[in-house]
Amino acid sequence: MGRVVLDISMSLDGFIAGPNPSLEQPLGAGGDRLHEWILGLASFRERHGGSGGVRDRDDEVVAESLAATGAVVMGRRMFSGGEGAWDGDPNADGWWGDTPPFHAPVFVLTHHVRQPVAKQGGTTFTFVTDGVEAALEQARAAAGAKDVLVAGGANVAQQVLSAGLLDEMQIHLVSVLLGDGTRLLEHLERTTVQLESTRVIESPAVTHLQYRVVGQG
Amino acid sequence: MGRVVLDISMSLDGFIAGPNPSLEQPLGAGGDRLHEWILGLASFRERHGGSGGVRDRDDEVVAESLAATGAVVMGRRMFSGGEGAWDGDPNADGWWGDTPPFHAPVFVLTHHVRQPVAKQGGTTFTFVTDGVEAALEQARAAAGAKDVLVAGGANVAQQVLSAGLLDEMQIHLVSVLLGDGTRLLEHLERTTVQLESTRVIESPAVTHLQYRVVGQG
Repeated sequence: MGRVVLDISMSLDGFIAGPNPSLEQPLGAGGDRLHEWILGLASFRERHGGSGGVRDRDDEVVAESLAATGAVVMGRRMFSGGEGAWDGDPNADGWWGDTPPFHAPVFVLTHHVRQPVAKQGGTTFTFVTDGVEAALEQARAAAGAKDVLVAGGANVAQQVLSAGLLDEMQIHLVSVLLGDGTRLLEHLERTTVQLESTRVIESPAVTHLQYRVVGQG
Repeated sequence: MGRVVLDISMSLDGFIAGPNPSLEQPLGAGGDRLHEWILGLASFRERHGGSGGVRDRDDEVVAESLAATGAVVMGRRMFSGGEGAWDGDPNADGWWGDTPPFHAPVFVLTHHVRQPVAKQGGTTFTFVTDGVEAALEQARAAAGAKDVLVAGGANVAQQVLSAGLLDEMQIHLVSVLLGDGTRLLEHLERTTVQLESTRVIESPAVTHLQYRVVGQG
């Protein structure tokens, strides 16, 4: 069976989004800086329907993660695009366009019941209203032998960690300070989670830190 | 001239001390876990008057930092041993014993004027009451061609970063989650500090992340 893996970009000061997210700026002020490292990579471009791009160690890390992923779990804000996006219309479509980059079943944690949405390229969005364990269970079934990727946001990641359901964490530690925004590693109920560093890959803009969760307190 | 270097152990969730520090537990609840990686190292033991110990890559990193350091800057709580220690007696001696491990001039940022204290083994504590820039200036003069080590705590580190006076940062990122405590990278006035990752060294318990400050916003 696959693992449950958190895979996310974080600033050196611990943020996965900047302050004041909006529809225009879903990652908040400065938040785009967290993802600059990935935009030019070949595997990322390919996933987004593009071509070309850089093939380096960063690209290998991303390609490996994409190949291992069989299903995705995310929060409703990540689905709909930022803090403000969902407020007006709980049935609003995601901001991921007609051909989302997941090419896999995506399970969206939400309080709003709605029908699944099938997009082009193999991405389906299924809405799960009975909590993070249920979402992971459905995702595991869909992923088969592959991994379940916990894509974010912070709230979902914290729920998975606090419930002791995470097997592995890959943090792309970006060499920037955002100063404010959404922190990844806070509100954790299990701070006695035991981590083991399993791999570190460095590049100029980002350090890829891989941890295995080896025990729970 | 030497550089101004911050060298400090931080948990993956960004803390350099756990919650509720006290005289008995100067690093707060769980804070000792941040320094377990260093206690058995040969260079660390030697500095503390011991012998033996492990000589591995962690030890090389520590030995390198010790050899490069010509003077140290720290806050008054780090001098006196935890949050509560200073409260009763502003003239209380540090908790560093008769032979502190610095073997170099140490400049302590404080609001209390007091005479310098000379200890055995080459450590002198000089108390600076006119701010972080003055402390760094005195430390630079004392260090000569060597580096000024900013040892902590968080408040001093934040002042140095916010004032744009830091040249380099070495963060020993420890694979633990403390959940609460004192964060290193917050209250920063200059979040537009530009960092460049200059070296990453991994070991099972800790990842040594070295950054150069390449520009200020």
